[in-house]
Amino acid sequence: MPQLPQIQPGSGTPIYRQLYTQMKQFIESGQWKAGERLPATRELAGTLGLNRATVSAAYGLLEAEGLIKGHVGRGSFVSVEEVRGRGVNWTSLLGDRPVSPAPAPVPSGAISFSASRPSTRLFPIEDLRASCREVLEGPQAAAILQLGSPGGYEPLRRYLLEASHREGVLGPEDELMVTSGCQQALDLLARVLLRPGEPVAIEDPVYPGLKNLFLEIGAEVTGVPMTAAGIDLDELQRALDRRRPKLVVVTSNFQNPTGATLSLGAREVLLRATRDAGAVLVENDIYGGLRYQGQPLPAVKQVDGSAPTVLLRSFSKISFPGLRVGWVIGPRPLIGRMLGAKQLSDLHTDHLSQAVLLRFAESGRLEAHRGRMLEAGAERLRAVLEGCERWMPRGAEFTRPEGGMNVWVRLPDPLDASELLGRVQRENVTYLPGRYFAVSRPATGALRLSFAGLEPEEIAQGVRVLGSVCSAEMERLNPPGGLEPAPAIV
Amino acid sequence: MPQLPQIQPGSGTPIYRQLYTQMKQFIESGQWKAGERLPATRELAGTLGLNRATVSAAYGLLEAEGLIKGHVGRGSFVSVEEVRGRGVNWTSLLGDRPVSPAPAPVPSGAISFSASRPSTRLFPIEDLRASCREVLEGPQAAAILQLGSPGGYEPLRRYLLEASHREGVLGPEDELMVTSGCQQALDLLARVLLRPGEPVAIEDPVYPGLKNLFLEIGAEVTGVPMTAAGIDLDELQRALDRRRPKLVVVTSNFQNPTGATLSLGAREVLLRATRDAGAVLVENDIYGGLRYQGQPLPAVKQVDGSAPTVLLRSFSKISFPGLRVGWVIGPRPLIGRMLGAKQLSDLHTDHLSQAVLLRFAESGRLEAHRGRMLEAGAERLRAVLEGCERWMPRGAEFTRPEGGMNVWVRLPDPLDASELLGRVQRENVTYLPGRYFAVSRPATGALRLSFAGLEPEEIAQGVRVLGSVCSAEMERLNPPGGLEPAPAIV
Repeated sequence: MPQLPQIQPGSGTPIYRQLYTQMKQFIESGQWKAGERLPATRELAGTLGLNRATVSAAYGLLEAEGLIKGHVGRGSFVSVEEVRGRGVNWTSLLGDRPVSPAPAPVPSGAISFSASRPSTRLFPIEDLRASCREVLEGPQAAAILQLGSPGGYEPLRRYLLEASHREGVLGPEDELMVTSGCQQALDLLARVLLRPGEPVAIEDPVYPGLKNLFLEIGAEVTGVPMTAAGIDLDELQRALDRRRPKLVVVTSNFQNPTGATLSLGAREVLLRATRDAGAVLVENDIYGGLRYQGQPLPAVKQVDGSAPTVLLRSFSKISFPGLRVGWVIGPRPLIGRMLGAKQLSDLHTDHLSQAVLLRFAESGRLEAHRGRMLEAGAERLRAVLEGCERWMPRGAEFTRPEGGMNVWVRLPDPLDASELLGRVQRENVTYLPGRYFAVSRPATGALRLSFAGLEPEEIAQGVRVLGSVCSAEMERLNPPGGLEPAPAIV
Repeated sequence: MPQLPQIQPGSGTPIYRQLYTQMKQFIESGQWKAGERLPATRELAGTLGLNRATVSAAYGLLEAEGLIKGHVGRGSFVSVEEVRGRGVNWTSLLGDRPVSPAPAPVPSGAISFSASRPSTRLFPIEDLRASCREVLEGPQAAAILQLGSPGGYEPLRRYLLEASHREGVLGPEDELMVTSGCQQALDLLARVLLRPGEPVAIEDPVYPGLKNLFLEIGAEVTGVPMTAAGIDLDELQRALDRRRPKLVVVTSNFQNPTGATLSLGAREVLLRATRDAGAVLVENDIYGGLRYQGQPLPAVKQVDGSAPTVLLRSFSKISFPGLRVGWVIGPRPLIGRMLGAKQLSDLHTDHLSQAVLLRFAESGRLEAHRGRMLEAGAERLRAVLEGCERWMPRGAEFTRPEGGMNVWVRLPDPLDASELLGRVQRENVTYLPGRYFAVSRPATGALRLSFAGLEPEEIAQGVRVLGSVCSAEMERLNPPGGLEPAPAIV
């Protein structure tokens, strides 16, 4: 029985589970044959440097499934008859998936605070139609229908390069590539920089698509707590010292889910700290174009153009999320490697959307649309903050972002945002509880209100319902009458 | 010095190089600290089960870079002062990349047989424009601009499901998802099914984007030789017995690069063999819609609908490669997992192209376009085969596909297709030598002629140039005058 399981300590999957999954596969694939004797638990534990109980737990699972059989005094034997010929065993082939489960679908007709995306009602369809027509009547029509380059549709790439240069976010050593949205940029970064077990530091709470991406590849994920002023810089320093992450991913503006923005001073500290630690700093800036109040701040990337910061941006939040076009600016060696990964991943980003968005931007339509988005966003932000002030129970806290799409609410103890969700949904309102965003710290009492997709009246109504349910629950738990002890849980 | 390098024998990277890269990173990341003593070469070789010379080679590289210093009789020590604070070392962070280098760009103005893609001149731009207009004037316009589902734009997905059902390629246990082209389908399959070191069997020669994808993730790649009738089934059986691949990827129709098609009998044998071995069979069928002669054959997927075959298809070869839309049909548990991977990879495939291609197909325009593609393809295939008959030197062999975009030429010994390329390019013709497609067997004398993007006259002219250069070289090597021995290589 030469092939032994291999353990990945930092993978997030319990070790007995890793052992079980791999041994099951050895048996079902025929690498471990029927009748063969398994190593004794003590022996295997010794070889792999594990606790014997861990190995026994894995053997127990295998025996429960009838895949092995223990004989007192003789050890355990592979008992499966012959899995070959029965085709593919998907459960065993696919193994476990270390990502958090997705939330249930939103009940239709509900006022939904669940999605951080723009309002469908604001889409300037006529402008998009014109951009599309101009592209397909233009001289490049045939070229955009042909196979392209992993770096992006060259006219769009040049347009973005020039805009980045003007803004001061394109360093002398930098290159720019187009991606299928920011999610792909994060995926390509993980793909070229991280191997299973390698350390990465991210915000906690954070957008689930970021957390799950790193969990899926088996990275060692450290969550750095968020404050109302962005990532906690002291905690980040501690994580840099202790974990030596290869990658630190930070949202500079209107973070998802907290809405927090880093001050200029914080940006400087962040840059220095990551640079001193030799970590790659990734600035995820998909909400930066959506500031409704206050003064815009320079991107972290702009604060020190010679630092090896990687900047991610996208058209999706400021225009149309259904057109998947984003871009990355970063040091040339990194972008070079990401181009290779991009080519293997999907050859290149869809040309039609790249060309149409370029036309939409070049024609000034994007800027005009952004003006309307800022107006609408300001109104919706006001509605959600006024609603929270008015309807949230005493002791609730919420962030006060100056832009973006999200407000983070912490309910007073002992309210549990997951437990309350069902009750709120019965009144036709829904949101995502904090646990979907939690990395290392529980966020039981927290929830995210994504306000950008709703009308101001819907926001007011939704927050009123949420606040009333929370207040009613607080009253039930702390009746004004006195301090009747709760019945013991038995 | 607790952290030791980990070796992946099947990764394609030489072991001394793996050792060097990892140790360099340990030093530069500070895991191995300045002044620390490295294990003796004999000791490390013993621990890792390697040859001592392999370890010495890695130490030699580190010493040459000044990262370690050897002291006679005392061993080697980490000599780097302090890499922290100097920022990011990209060479070390990114490591080596185990994929074949890309070919040089095609000289502009050349008759290029290098790309397996349709002719830009055949694109029905007016039809596409109409499809685009209809989509953006239709009731779904706003919906397609909003964030969507990882499974695809639902009306397109339903359309493809119905078409697949009618064709008989949708088994009772199957599900269908849209991908950003076939490349992404392959990437998602690799992502959910393969871990580094796990075995996979592919055709040899094969499309480089497939080979490189598996090499990049560190899979153990076995190339199964191709015959003019498709993958060699005896060799495949041997690979299944010896390597137990988890995944077998096969092109049923007009394989890239050979143009070979599997007979119905071969499809049946293939199904049985992979099924008996418990391997997942992936049928890559992006050229199946482009048959110019002969009778169409059922997809492998259709031959046994209850087998766990995974079928990949795409709009890119039969319509517009610049619009990145393909789809996968496969067993529900697998597609379920791929949906999760897709969401982390890029959220979902671009909506605009999905909606436009759906309209293009539903309106009958795709079928009309395919009719013109078949006519044009037949003419081009005839041109390339006639050219090869007429101009290739005696002893050359070439495949005779009945469809697709590629003909595979084997030049007579001792011609080397890479060596001849420069000479052919000087006469304004270019192609890809066989080595770009080789997996485990060299393909020195072979080359691919991708004919679909050219006009028949260009094909005739290009093959004439290629044939003349080859013939001239054969004459030079074997002058009709006699058998003068070549000068010795000294």
